[in-house]
Amino acid sequence: MREMLYLEDIEAGQRFTTGHHPLTEDEILAFARDYDPQPFHIDPEAARHSFFGGLAASGWHTAAISMRLQVDSGPPLAGGMIGASVELNWPLPTRPGDVLHVESEVLEVTPSRSRPDRGFITLKSQTLNQKGEVVQVQISKLLVWRRKAP
Amino acid sequence: MREMLYLEDIEAGQRFTTGHHPLTEDEILAFARDYDPQPFHIDPEAARHSFFGGLAASGWHTAAISMRLQVDSGPPLAGGMIGASVELNWPLPTRPGDVLHVESEVLEVTPSRSRPDRGFITLKSQTLNQKGEVVQVQISKLLVWRRKAP
Repeated sequence: MREMLYLEDIEAGQRFTTGHHPLTEDEILAFARDYDPQPFHIDPEAARHSFFGGLAASGWHTAAISMRLQVDSGPPLAGGMIGASVELNWPLPTRPGDVLHVESEVLEVTPSRSRPDRGFITLKSQTLNQKGEVVQVQISKLLVWRRKAP
Repeated sequence: MREMLYLEDIEAGQRFTTGHHPLTEDEILAFARDYDPQPFHIDPEAARHSFFGGLAASGWHTAAISMRLQVDSGPPLAGGMIGASVELNWPLPTRPGDVLHVESEVLEVTPSRSRPDRGFITLKSQTLNQKGEVVQVQISKLLVWRRKAP
């Protein structure tokens, strides 16, 4: 059981590293068939002749796997990870056989001015593959509860 | 068969509206069990006592459904919808029974300076429920091919 973190426990510069998720071609195809059925995500042969030069996971799949890694083994926020907003980019494609993990760092902690029971943290999360290459960069604004109102 | 759009065909102010996706509780639970297994996304009873006041879809599920709607019936970009970066926020939760669609507008068209075969468009996409409430706002920078190099 990990100790839950409240706003008072968090400061800029804190870092977290998740466990690993090995990604199969089948999982890439299944997600993409449901949510992003473009040739370069669902057809290995068509993907070879596309911009991606081979099968690539949907960026939304990379984002979803990154969320799962954060929920399982990222910052253990009391009350859960509740995102208010997020910026995302994908510097490199995610490929079948990649083993992903997420490294994150707190950039900012901002108590709410209007609500004494809560605040926000800005978290920069990078999703890396087994070669240490960054496949996704995410800046999230997350709602975090205070242990007690000041 | 819809006519495919190249960079030359796109201008700021163009608007697109997708078809509709009715969202079931089962689909919310299945996605969340795989990718975002937090109590307010996988347990209707726990969700009632949470921040969300009832079962809510993972924001990543709302994003994935919005992508599917865009792929099926959004702007028919030649070469597909390839996102370079995106900003997302979720003004309201997505609930079981919601019927979602996406309305988008081109904010900006930017030919690449270094690559004469391509450019980028900035697309603002709002995902709405059956009451016309916005549940997701997304600003995407998408890669778009030119019909021919200048």
